[in-house]
Amino acid sequence: MRTRKLSSVFALMESGPVVLVTTHDGKRSNVMTISWTMVVDFTPRFAITTGAWNYSYKALRKTRECVIAIPTVDMLDTVVGVGTCSGADTDKFAKFKLTAVPAKRVKAPLIKECVANIECRVVEIIHRHNIVVLEGVAAHEASARKERRTLHAVGDGTFIVDGRKLDRRRQMAAKIPAGV
Amino acid sequence: MRTRKLSSVFALMESGPVVLVTTHDGKRSNVMTISWTMVVDFTPRFAITTGAWNYSYKALRKTRECVIAIPTVDMLDTVVGVGTCSGADTDKFAKFKLTAVPAKRVKAPLIKECVANIECRVVEIIHRHNIVVLEGVAAHEASARKERRTLHAVGDGTFIVDGRKLDRRRQMAAKIPAGV
Repeated sequence: MRTRKLSSVFALMESGPVVLVTTHDGKRSNVMTISWTMVVDFTPRFAITTGAWNYSYKALRKTRECVIAIPTVDMLDTVVGVGTCSGADTDKFAKFKLTAVPAKRVKAPLIKECVANIECRVVEIIHRHNIVVLEGVAAHEASARKERRTLHAVGDGTFIVDGRKLDRRRQMAAKIPAGV
Repeated sequence: MRTRKLSSVFALMESGPVVLVTTHDGKRSNVMTISWTMVVDFTPRFAITTGAWNYSYKALRKTRECVIAIPTVDMLDTVVGVGTCSGADTDKFAKFKLTAVPAKRVKAPLIKECVANIECRVVEIIHRHNIVVLEGVAAHEASARKERRTLHAVGDGTFIVDGRKLDRRRQMAAKIPAGV
Protein backbone atom coordinates (compact mmCIF):
# COMPACT_ATOMS: atom_id res chain seq x y z
CA MET A 1 0.00 0.00 0.00
CA ARG A 2 1.22 3.44 -0.94
CA THR A 3 1.11 6.33 1.53
CA ARG A 4 -1.40 9.02 0.61
CA LYS A 5 -0.79 12.63 1.55
CA LEU A 6 -3.22 13.85 4.18
CA SER A 7 -4.32 16.95 2.27
CA SER A 8 -6.29 14.86 -0.23
CA VAL A 9 -7.62 12.16 2.13
CA PHE A 10 -10.99 13.88 2.70
CA ALA A 11 -11.81 13.10 -0.93
CA LEU A 12 -11.75 9.36 -0.13
CA MET A 13 -14.71 9.93 2.19
CA GLU A 14 -16.62 12.91 0.83
CA SER A 15 -18.70 10.89 -1.64
CA GLY A 16 -20.16 8.79 1.17
CA PRO A 17 -18.81 5.26 0.73
CA VAL A 18 -19.85 2.61 3.24
CA VAL A 19 -16.71 1.89 5.27
CA LEU A 20 -15.21 -0.70 7.57
CA VAL A 21 -13.85 0.65 10.86
CA THR A 22 -11.21 -1.40 12.68
CA THR A 23 -10.26 -1.20 16.33
CA HIS A 24 -7.84 -3.04 18.60
CA ASP A 25 -8.80 -3.37 22.26
CA GLY A 26 -5.31 -4.40 23.45
CA LYS A 27 -6.00 -8.07 22.85
CA ARG A 28 -7.93 -8.50 19.62
CA SER A 29 -8.71 -6.62 16.45
CA ASN A 30 -12.30 -6.08 15.44
CA VAL A 31 -14.12 -4.45 12.56
CA MET A 32 -17.55 -2.91 12.05
CA THR A 33 -19.47 -1.61 9.04
CA ILE A 34 -20.41 2.07 9.23
CA SER A 35 -22.41 4.04 6.69
CA TRP A 36 -23.15 7.10 8.84
CA THR A 37 -20.02 9.17 8.18
CA MET A 38 -19.10 12.64 6.98
CA VAL A 39 -16.08 14.83 6.41
CA VAL A 40 -15.87 17.74 8.86
CA ASP A 41 -12.55 19.29 7.84
CA PHE A 42 -9.95 19.08 5.08
CA THR A 43 -7.13 18.47 7.59
CA PRO A 44 -8.73 15.74 7.44
CA ARG A 45 -11.35 15.28 10.09
CA PHE A 46 -14.33 12.97 9.95
CA ALA A 47 -17.42 12.33 11.99
CA ILE A 48 -18.98 8.91 12.37
CA THR A 49 -22.11 7.94 14.24
CA THR A 50 -21.70 4.96 16.54
CA GLY A 51 -22.40 4.00 20.11
CA ALA A 52 -22.67 1.19 22.62
CA TRP A 53 -24.89 -0.81 20.23
CA ASN A 54 -21.69 -1.57 18.31
CA TYR A 55 -19.31 -3.91 20.15
CA SER A 56 -16.36 -2.01 18.63
CA TYR A 57 -17.45 1.15 20.39
CA LYS A 58 -15.93 0.09 23.70
CA ALA A 59 -12.49 -0.32 22.13
CA LEU A 60 -12.87 2.90 20.17
CA ARG A 61 -13.75 4.78 23.32
CA LYS A 62 -10.98 3.19 25.39
CA THR A 63 -8.12 3.42 22.89
CA ARG A 64 -9.31 6.56 21.09
CA GLU A 65 -7.98 5.11 17.86
CA CYS A 66 -9.38 3.38 14.79
CA VAL A 67 -8.80 2.84 11.09
CA ILE A 68 -11.36 3.72 8.45
CA ALA A 69 -10.93 1.18 5.65
CA ILE A 70 -12.73 1.67 2.36
CA PRO A 71 -14.06 -1.46 0.67
CA THR A 72 -15.03 -1.72 -2.99
CA VAL A 73 -17.95 -3.34 -4.79
CA ASP A 74 -16.32 -6.79 -4.92
CA MET A 75 -16.36 -6.76 -1.09
CA LEU A 76 -20.14 -6.26 -0.73
CA ASP A 77 -20.75 -9.56 1.01
CA THR A 78 -17.93 -8.82 3.44
CA VAL A 79 -19.47 -5.40 4.18
CA VAL A 80 -22.87 -7.00 4.81
CA GLY A 81 -21.39 -9.91 6.79
CA VAL A 82 -19.24 -7.67 9.00
CA GLY A 83 -22.28 -5.46 9.61
CA THR A 84 -24.57 -8.30 10.66
CA CYS A 85 -22.48 -10.18 13.23
CA SER A 86 -20.70 -9.05 16.39
CA GLY A 87 -17.12 -9.01 17.56
CA ALA A 88 -18.51 -10.12 20.94
CA ASP A 89 -18.61 -13.71 19.68
CA THR A 90 -16.91 -13.62 16.27
CA ASP A 91 -13.35 -13.11 15.07
CA LYS A 92 -14.42 -11.14 12.03
CA PHE A 93 -10.94 -10.93 10.50
CA ALA A 94 -10.83 -14.76 10.43
CA LYS A 95 -14.45 -15.24 9.42
CA PHE A 96 -14.30 -12.84 6.46
CA LYS A 97 -10.68 -13.63 5.51
CA LEU A 98 -9.55 -10.06 6.01
CA THR A 99 -5.80 -9.48 6.24
CA ALA A 100 -4.80 -7.25 9.15
CA VAL A 101 -1.75 -5.14 8.32
CA PRO A 102 0.01 -3.13 11.05
CA ALA A 103 -0.73 0.58 10.86
CA LYS A 104 1.91 3.25 11.25
CA ARG A 105 0.50 5.51 13.97
CA VAL A 106 -2.32 3.55 15.63
CA LYS A 107 -2.76 0.02 17.00
CA ALA A 108 -5.95 -0.69 15.04
CA PRO A 109 -5.01 -2.63 11.90
CA LEU A 110 -5.28 -1.68 8.25
CA ILE A 111 -7.27 -4.02 6.03
CA LYS A 112 -5.13 -5.17 3.12
CA GLU A 113 -8.11 -5.99 0.88
CA CYS A 114 -9.48 -2.42 1.01
CA VAL A 115 -8.73 0.25 -1.58
CA ALA A 116 -7.72 2.79 1.08
CA ASN A 117 -7.10 2.93 4.82
CA ILE A 118 -7.14 6.03 7.01
CA GLU A 119 -5.50 5.85 10.45
CA CYS A 120 -7.52 7.96 12.88
CA ARG A 121 -7.40 9.32 16.39
CA VAL A 122 -10.53 10.30 18.30
CA VAL A 123 -10.76 14.08 18.76
CA GLU A 124 -13.99 14.02 20.74
CA ILE A 125 -17.00 11.85 21.39
CA ILE A 126 -20.20 13.89 21.46
CA HIS A 127 -22.15 11.42 23.55
CA ARG A 128 -25.57 13.08 23.35
CA HIS A 129 -25.59 12.62 19.56
CA ASN A 130 -23.44 9.47 19.33
CA ILE A 131 -21.09 11.41 17.08
CA VAL A 132 -17.39 10.52 17.16
CA VAL A 133 -15.10 13.16 15.67
CA LEU A 134 -11.92 11.65 14.21
CA GLU A 135 -8.68 13.10 12.94
CA GLY A 136 -6.88 11.30 10.12
CA VAL A 137 -3.19 10.92 11.03
CA ALA A 138 -1.95 8.71 8.19
CA ALA A 139 -3.43 7.19 5.05
CA HIS A 140 -2.62 4.43 2.63
CA GLU A 141 -3.93 3.56 -0.78
CA ALA A 142 -3.81 0.35 -2.78
CA SER A 143 -2.76 2.21 -5.88
CA ALA A 144 -2.35 -0.91 -8.04
CA ARG A 145 -5.86 -2.16 -7.29
CA LYS A 146 -8.05 -2.29 -10.38
CA GLU A 147 -11.51 -2.32 -8.80
CA ARG A 148 -11.98 1.09 -7.22
CA ARG A 149 -15.78 1.49 -7.27
CA THR A 150 -17.15 2.00 -3.77
CA LEU A 151 -20.57 1.17 -2.35
CA HIS A 152 -23.18 3.52 -0.92
CA ALA A 153 -25.54 1.98 1.63
CA VAL A 154 -29.13 3.12 1.17
CA GLY A 155 -30.21 1.83 4.58
CA ASP A 156 -32.96 -0.45 3.31
CA GLY A 157 -30.66 -3.39 2.57
CA THR A 158 -29.72 -2.17 -0.90
CA PHE A 159 -26.40 -0.68 -1.97
CA ILE A 160 -25.65 1.73 -4.81
CA VAL A 161 -22.46 1.07 -6.77
CA ASP A 162 -20.40 4.03 -8.02
CA GLY A 163 -21.45 4.78 -11.59
CA ARG A 164 -19.70 7.06 -14.03
CA LYS A 165 -17.78 10.11 -12.96
CA LEU A 166 -18.65 13.60 -14.22
CA ASP A 167 -15.92 16.23 -14.35
CA ARG A 168 -16.60 19.78 -13.22
CA ARG A 169 -13.05 20.53 -12.05
CA ARG A 170 -12.83 23.68 -14.13
CA GLN A 171 -16.09 25.12 -12.76
CA MET A 172 -15.18 24.09 -9.19
CA ALA A 173 -11.55 25.24 -9.34
CA ALA A 174 -12.01 28.07 -6.83
CA LYS A 175 -13.52 25.64 -4.29
CA ILE A 176 -10.95 22.85 -4.46
CA PRO A 177 -8.39 23.08 -1.66
CA ALA A 178 -4.68 23.04 -2.45
CA GLY A 179 -3.10 19.59 -2.51
CA VAL A 180 -6.12 17.75 -3.91
CA MET B 1 -44.94 16.24 -4.30
CA ARG B 2 -46.06 13.33 -2.18
CA THR B 3 -45.51 13.28 1.58
CA ARG B 4 -42.99 10.69 2.71
CA LYS B 5 -43.30 9.06 6.11
CA LEU B 6 -40.53 10.12 8.47
CA SER B 7 -39.49 6.59 9.43
CA SER B 8 -37.93 5.98 6.01
CA VAL B 9 -36.50 9.44 5.36
CA PHE B 10 -32.99 8.60 6.64
CA ALA B 11 -32.64 6.31 3.59
CA LEU B 12 -32.80 9.37 1.31
CA MET B 13 -29.56 10.59 2.92
CA GLU B 14 -27.66 7.52 4.04
CA SER B 15 -25.98 6.88 0.69
CA GLY B 16 -24.33 10.30 0.78
CA PRO B 17 -25.90 12.35 -2.02
CA VAL B 18 -24.73 15.92 -2.50
CA VAL B 19 -27.65 18.10 -1.37
CA LEU B 20 -29.01 21.60 -1.65
CA VAL B 21 -29.91 23.25 1.66
CA THR B 22 -32.43 26.10 1.61
CA THR B 23 -32.96 28.78 4.24
CA HIS B 24 -35.20 31.81 4.60
CA ASP B 25 -33.84 34.73 6.61
CA GLY B 26 -37.20 36.49 7.03
CA LYS B 27 -36.78 38.41 3.79
CA ARG B 28 -35.27 36.16 1.16
CA SER B 29 -34.77 32.52 0.42
CA ASN B 30 -31.29 31.21 -0.24
CA VAL B 31 -29.72 27.88 -1.11
CA MET B 32 -26.30 26.31 -0.68
CA THR B 33 -24.66 23.08 -1.86
CA ILE B 34 -23.52 20.76 0.91
CA SER B 35 -21.72 17.45 0.52
CA TRP B 36 -20.58 17.02 4.15
CA THR B 37 -23.65 15.33 5.62
CA MET B 38 -24.53 12.19 7.56
CA VAL B 39 -27.46 10.48 9.18
CA VAL B 40 -27.24 10.42 12.99
CA ASP B 41 -30.57 8.80 13.87
CA PHE B 42 -33.47 7.02 12.22
CA THR B 43 -36.01 9.44 13.70
CA PRO B 44 -34.60 11.02 11.36
CA ARG B 45 -31.72 13.20 12.45
CA PHE B 46 -28.91 14.45 10.28
CA ALA B 47 -25.62 16.25 10.78
CA ILE B 48 -24.22 18.70 8.26
CA THR B 49 -20.95 20.58 8.39
CA THR B 50 -21.24 24.29 7.69
CA GLY B 51 -20.20 27.58 9.21
CA ALA B 52 -19.79 31.29 8.70
CA TRP B 53 -17.95 30.68 5.38
CA ASN B 54 -21.39 29.92 3.93
CA TYR B 55 -23.67 32.96 3.64
CA SER B 56 -26.67 30.71 4.42
CA TYR B 57 -25.23 29.90 7.84
CA LYS B 58 -26.40 33.17 9.36
CA ALA B 59 -30.03 32.45 8.41
CA LEU B 60 -29.71 28.84 9.51
CA ARG B 61 -28.38 29.93 12.87
CA LYS B 62 -30.97 32.67 13.34
CA THR B 63 -34.08 30.79 12.21
CA ARG B 64 -32.93 27.30 13.26
CA GLU B 65 -34.71 25.89 10.22
CA CYS B 66 -33.76 24.66 6.77
CA VAL B 67 -34.78 22.26 4.03
CA ILE B 68 -32.50 19.56 2.69
CA ALA B 69 -33.37 19.15 -1.00
CA ILE B 70 -31.93 16.25 -2.96
CA PRO B 71 -30.98 16.97 -6.57
CA THR B 72 -30.43 14.35 -9.25
CA VAL B 73 -27.83 13.90 -11.97
CA ASP B 74 -29.65 16.16 -14.46
CA MET B 75 -29.17 19.01 -11.97
CA LEU B 76 -25.36 18.75 -11.78
CA ASP B 77 -24.72 22.20 -13.21
CA THR B 78 -27.20 23.70 -10.75
CA VAL B 79 -25.42 21.93 -7.89
CA VAL B 80 -22.05 23.27 -9.06
CA GLY B 81 -23.45 26.74 -9.77
CA VAL B 82 -25.21 27.05 -6.42
CA GLY B 83 -22.01 25.90 -4.71
CA THR B 84 -19.78 28.44 -6.44
CA CYS B 85 -21.64 31.71 -5.93
CA SER B 86 -22.98 33.44 -2.83
CA GLY B 87 -26.40 34.49 -1.62
CA ALA B 88 -24.70 37.68 -0.42
CA ASP B 89 -24.93 39.09 -3.96
CA THR B 90 -27.00 36.56 -5.90
CA ASP B 91 -30.64 35.50 -5.90
CA LYS B 92 -29.83 31.86 -6.50
CA PHE B 93 -33.44 30.76 -6.95
CA ALA B 94 -33.76 33.21 -9.86
CA LYS B 95 -30.30 32.59 -11.30
CA PHE B 96 -30.68 28.80 -11.39
CA LYS B 97 -34.41 28.80 -12.19
CA LEU B 98 -35.29 26.87 -9.05
CA THR B 99 -38.94 26.85 -8.03
CA ALA B 100 -39.49 27.63 -4.35
CA VAL B 101 -42.51 25.78 -2.96
CA PRO B 102 -43.84 26.60 0.53
CA ALA B 103 -42.93 23.97 3.11
CA LYS B 104 -45.37 22.63 5.67
CA ARG B 105 -43.55 23.14 8.97
CA VAL B 106 -40.67 25.54 8.26
CA LYS B 107 -40.25 28.86 6.46
CA ALA B 108 -37.36 27.70 4.27
CA PRO B 109 -38.72 26.65 0.87
CA LEU B 110 -38.83 23.27 -0.80
CA ILE B 111 -37.23 23.03 -4.25
CA LYS B 112 -39.75 21.70 -6.73
CA GLU B 113 -37.09 20.42 -9.15
CA CYS B 114 -35.52 18.10 -6.55
CA VAL B 115 -36.43 14.43 -6.13
CA ALA B 116 -37.00 14.82 -2.39
CA ASN B 117 -37.18 17.57 0.22
CA ILE B 118 -36.72 17.17 3.98
CA GLU B 119 -37.96 19.97 6.26
CA CYS B 120 -35.58 20.30 9.19
CA ARG B 121 -35.23 22.05 12.51
CA VAL B 122 -31.87 22.68 14.13
CA VAL B 123 -31.37 20.54 17.24
CA GLU B 124 -27.95 21.89 18.12
CA ILE B 125 -25.00 23.65 16.57
CA ILE B 126 -21.71 22.19 17.78
CA HIS B 127 -19.65 25.29 17.06
CA ARG B 128 -16.21 23.87 17.79
CA HIS B 129 -16.65 21.32 14.99
CA ASN B 130 -18.97 23.34 12.71
CA ILE B 131 -21.46 20.49 12.97
CA VAL B 132 -25.17 21.33 12.77
CA VAL B 133 -27.48 18.59 14.05
CA LEU B 134 -30.88 18.65 12.33
CA GLU B 135 -34.16 16.91 12.96
CA GLY B 136 -36.36 16.06 9.99
CA VAL B 137 -39.92 17.19 10.71
CA ALA B 138 -41.61 16.57 7.34
CA ALA B 139 -40.57 15.13 4.00
CA HIS B 140 -41.81 15.17 0.44
CA GLU B 141 -40.94 13.11 -2.58
CA ALA B 142 -41.44 13.72 -6.29
CA SER B 143 -42.74 10.22 -6.78
CA ALA B 144 -43.56 10.65 -10.47
CA ARG B 145 -40.05 11.87 -11.32
CA LYS B 146 -38.25 9.51 -13.67
CA GLU B 147 -34.64 10.55 -13.07
CA ARG B 148 -33.81 9.47 -9.55
CA ARG B 149 -30.03 8.98 -9.70
CA THR B 150 -28.23 11.20 -7.20
CA LEU B 151 -24.72 12.63 -7.30
CA HIS B 152 -21.84 12.03 -4.89
CA ALA B 153 -19.29 14.84 -4.67
CA VAL B 154 -15.72 13.55 -4.52
CA GLY B 155 -14.34 16.91 -3.41
CA ASP B 156 -11.87 17.32 -6.25
CA GLY B 157 -14.39 18.81 -8.68
CA THR B 158 -15.65 15.45 -9.91
CA PHE B 159 -18.99 13.83 -9.11
CA ILE B 160 -19.94 10.15 -9.05
CA VAL B 161 -23.35 9.28 -10.45
CA ASP B 162 -25.39 6.51 -8.81
CA GLY B 163 -24.71 3.28 -10.67
CA ARG B 164 -26.60 0.03 -10.34
CA LYS B 165 -28.24 -1.06 -7.13
CA LEU B 166 -27.33 -4.34 -5.43
CA ASP B 167 -29.92 -6.03 -3.23
CA ARG B 168 -28.93 -7.56 0.11
CA ARG B 169 -32.27 -6.97 1.83
CA ARG B 170 -32.58 -10.61 2.88
CA GLN B 171 -29.12 -10.69 4.48
CA MET B 172 -29.66 -7.28 6.11
CA ALA B 173 -33.24 -7.95 7.32
CA ALA B 174 -32.34 -7.96 11.02
CA LYS B 175 -30.67 -4.53 10.66
CA ILE B 176 -33.39 -2.69 8.75
CA PRO B 177 -35.60 -0.60 11.03
CA ALA B 178 -39.38 -0.96 10.90
CA GLY B 179 -41.12 1.33 8.44
CA VAL B 180 -38.39 1.32 5.80
